[in-house]
Amino acid sequence: MDSKVVGILGGGQLGRMLVEAANRLNVKTVILESGKLAPAKQINAVSEHVDGSFTDPAAIRELAKRCDILTVEIEHVDTDTLKAVRKETGIQIHPSPETLEIIKDKYAQKQHLMKYNIPVAECLSVESTAAALAKVGEKFDYPYMLKSKTEAYDGRGNYVVEDKSCIMKALEVLHDRPLYAERWAPFTKELAVMVVRSVKGEIFSYPTVETIQQNNICHIVYAPARISDTKRAEAQIMAGNAIASFSGAGIFGVEMFLLPDGQLLVNEIAPRPHNSGHYTIDACVTSQFEAHIRAITGLPMPKNFTCLSTPNTHAIMLNVLGADKPNGELIMCRRALSIPNASVYLYGKTTRPGRKMGHINIVSESMVDCERRLAYIRGETEESPSSLDIGIESQALVSVIMGSDSDLPVMSAACNILKDFQVPFEVTIVSAHRTPHRMAKYAIDAPKRGIRCIIAGAGGAAHLPGMVAAMTPLPVIGVPVKGHILDGVDSLHSIVQMPRGVPVATVAINNSTNAALLAVRILGIFDPQYTIAMEKYQSDMEDGVLVKAEKLESGGYEEYLAHYKR
Amino acid sequence: MDSKVVGILGGGQLGRMLVEAANRLNVKTVILESGKLAPAKQINAVSEHVDGSFTDPAAIRELAKRCDILTVEIEHVDTDTLKAVRKETGIQIHPSPETLEIIKDKYAQKQHLMKYNIPVAECLSVESTAAALAKVGEKFDYPYMLKSKTEAYDGRGNYVVEDKSCIMKALEVLHDRPLYAERWAPFTKELAVMVVRSVKGEIFSYPTVETIQQNNICHIVYAPARISDTKRAEAQIMAGNAIASFSGAGIFGVEMFLLPDGQLLVNEIAPRPHNSGHYTIDACVTSQFEAHIRAITGLPMPKNFTCLSTPNTHAIMLNVLGADKPNGELIMCRRALSIPNASVYLYGKTTRPGRKMGHINIVSESMVDCERRLAYIRGETEESPSSLDIGIESQALVSVIMGSDSDLPVMSAACNILKDFQVPFEVTIVSAHRTPHRMAKYAIDAPKRGIRCIIAGAGGAAHLPGMVAAMTPLPVIGVPVKGHILDGVDSLHSIVQMPRGVPVATVAINNSTNAALLAVRILGIFDPQYTIAMEKYQSDMEDGVLVKAEKLESGGYEEYLAHYKR
Repeated sequence: MDSKVVGILGGGQLGRMLVEAANRLNVKTVILESGKLAPAKQINAVSEHVDGSFTDPAAIRELAKRCDILTVEIEHVDTDTLKAVRKETGIQIHPSPETLEIIKDKYAQKQHLMKYNIPVAECLSVESTAAALAKVGEKFDYPYMLKSKTEAYDGRGNYVVEDKSCIMKALEVLHDRPLYAERWAPFTKELAVMVVRSVKGEIFSYPTVETIQQNNICHIVYAPARISDTKRAEAQIMAGNAIASFSGAGIFGVEMFLLPDGQLLVNEIAPRPHNSGHYTIDACVTSQFEAHIRAITGLPMPKNFTCLSTPNTHAIMLNVLGADKPNGELIMCRRALSIPNASVYLYGKTTRPGRKMGHINIVSESMVDCERRLAYIRGETEESPSSLDIGIESQALVSVIMGSDSDLPVMSAACNILKDFQVPFEVTIVSAHRTPHRMAKYAIDAPKRGIRCIIAGAGGAAHLPGMVAAMTPLPVIGVPVKGHILDGVDSLHSIVQMPRGVPVATVAINNSTNAALLAVRILGIFDPQYTIAMEKYQSDMEDGVLVKAEKLESGGYEEYLAHYKR
Repeated sequence: MDSKVVGILGGGQLGRMLVEAANRLNVKTVILESGKLAPAKQINAVSEHVDGSFTDPAAIRELAKRCDILTVEIEHVDTDTLKAVRKETGIQIHPSPETLEIIKDKYAQKQHLMKYNIPVAECLSVESTAAALAKVGEKFDYPYMLKSKTEAYDGRGNYVVEDKSCIMKALEVLHDRPLYAERWAPFTKELAVMVVRSVKGEIFSYPTVETIQQNNICHIVYAPARISDTKRAEAQIMAGNAIASFSGAGIFGVEMFLLPDGQLLVNEIAPRPHNSGHYTIDACVTSQFEAHIRAITGLPMPKNFTCLSTPNTHAIMLNVLGADKPNGELIMCRRALSIPNASVYLYGKTTRPGRKMGHINIVSESMVDCERRLAYIRGETEESPSSLDIGIESQALVSVIMGSDSDLPVMSAACNILKDFQVPFEVTIVSAHRTPHRMAKYAIDAPKRGIRCIIAGAGGAAHLPGMVAAMTPLPVIGVPVKGHILDGVDSLHSIVQMPRGVPVATVAINNSTNAALLAVRILGIFDPQYTIAMEKYQSDMEDGVLVKAEKLESGGYEEYLAHYKR
């Protein structure tokens, strides 16, 4: 696609996935990493790679000779050499060495963000003495975070100072490191947003995700984050603003804290593909890896190319860490392969306890479904894979409720139609007047249980459809059931004459058939198979009438009537 | 994932994509192909590959020495050597050499399918003489197909005998080939189904797709095929039955003809990944390449792992063929990269006119949207990529119609609500009684135009909502508009009291607000953003009442009433 050759400093799994994306676009890559079989080198047999460390000036120079563009899969590189090489050769480097320099020093990174008004936890540089740390404790109170400014990743270089008595231990753990202290952020969730910046400085934010850390390593990612829409948008914008403040193109991972009062703080930034963005391979229009390759080579980056594949896409990413027993982690991978909607990515590494060996992406149309699959993969449930195959389809999509069992003869026609159209449904009794609390719980829980549409039948005062509609955001279809007096007009008016703000889709008196047919039409806008079935139903209905018409025309009306009466 | 090493005979793009899938699962592959930089070899730097032809017995033996399992990316291999090697070493070969032997001889393949009652076009073996061909013409009539039994692919080895005068030319083109003749199949569409068979013989069919050939090369694939559900299912089952008749595991491509009377014929089978299955990389739960790797290594193959990613997934695959100008085909690739929902796969080949250089997968929630993107990529429209970014979202989802402009004051409330909820909508006048033909066209076209829900307002006899509902499978919401007499009860009864079979979701008299709110709830089941917005609307409504309640409680009812009157 592009004749420019991309040199990558670092050849781990992030480099490997960059190479995979580059291979698909015929973009040539060269890897700088020690060893012939680094994960990234394994899948590129075309180039002559460089054997050496990404901190070795001679090796960096050797890489630069073979490439037109340099990039990184790790920030702890020798930025001075990168600057010098750029000056000597004019080679493009993305992100810029200046950006890498700021970001790889976490304290400088924080200072930079503050300068650009990006909210971060309060922090200050601190000397490695007990007195200095005690003074921080007085200022920030306990607990507070003590962090190494440099060479810190996956939690290495962080220490929680629980109280004054921990100070000596903290100094012992982080001895000979340049330190800074950070006020404790009592976050309720950790969020992350991948952001990609084009050469021209355009900013594209991926969706906001939620990360679950375990032993300071990103363990599980929920995409999108299980927070409000507004908060997700706020995090995307904040992450975008943070990255707009740096120079150079490429992908960045922005980690954030969500505080109990709703405030967002940027925790730290990675100037490269990031573990929290692995879900993008399966759940987004374009993966973080392809986005990075496009950004640094100047390939097109259309609006929306960082969106979830569909508005309904939900995903969970689970890291595969080396088990205590060699290859023990493969048991989990095999479980993932044994259900659909889970993809396994292994990095070609030798197994070692705790090592990032791969990851698993689960993608589905609901987070509940993703979570069920996650539980199976982690061995937390023995729910058989065959029940997972059916996925959310096995759950009821339509719920048929009625105020009294005396409504069942009328409402059963709806059930028959739903059966005919193979719509998964449930049927029960919920009375507005006799079980008001059950009704409230039912209405509130219905959307969470995956119900997409409610059919409610009621007679007389007929409050059930309207009351349920008032307590759920789902479409509610009301069936007026005819009573002994007033011919059902009482129920009809009670159901249809709802106040502005709370609609009930009302059908004819006693006509629960039409309620079910309406539900099928509604489901059709989310699953076209129902629209196709409805078209067939309508055309069969037409054929049925035409057959009758022919019979009436050919046999005469008297003959027809005689049979009709039978 | 699996410690077995897979040897692949052939190292073109199909091998390359198999290697990519194997890399992700840490499954080791070794390639047999001439040249050091065959596409498949380019992305596997771990193995020592074999340099040689997949028809060379010595090279096949060399490959077998390094592997535990052998497979193919092309059927024209030396099956006798494969059988011998299997006998000598006990190596697993998938699909079995016996299967490859039958399939690579197209006439033997047809005989085999007939033996298993799989419908195929009538055919017979024929000698390479003018007299024999003329005799076929008498039996089959003209045109008929003359085909080489062996070494035929991408249309090479096929000749259409238009009439008797073409016989000499046919013999000239297909000279020194073993021939057979086939009765002409006047197909209306070409269909294809990828089928994967496990080691245990289980069969999994991918969706039925439609292929468009150009110069005998698969050019465009529509997934799923634009035919009825029933016909798609029938093709899947027929393809599955065809593959169940062969031995050995792996992926197979089954090409079929759809005849004008709805009959399906199997045209031919490829015992390997197939061009018509490239869409699976982006549109299915598991790609055809990973499915093949799983099948031959005995990895898990859960039910439904060959399904489309979601019931709404639609895809188009476009082959990227070498342009007349070197790299001219990259212009098309660049256009694909400049819009979202299109992914580019290049095969690392040197450009040559007509050569398969790569492919583009377009995935979206509707075929109409895929087709718009395809037109842009092929340069058939200059519709700007930025309008494509917005995708189907920019089209109206809800249509507001009314029988007369006098209904607009009532119906405008619905428009206001739709605007507030940012629902793309359209509004127009359609009268059942005064513009019956316009109404019919409107109702039939609405689903094709991407409308998901119709709001119809009418007064008096109020036939519009019911008539539209009778002619569309979409959900129709009816708003009874109050006239000068009868208080709107006439319209209410006319709209709500529909006969069984044709539902109209009726709301209160003049309450078009509720009609729009119902439409938003309905859209919510296909796009959760609307459900979230509805929840917010309901909670705001609650807050609004609570504020009023507090005002009433604190100020007293007289004070409140005084202000209320103002």
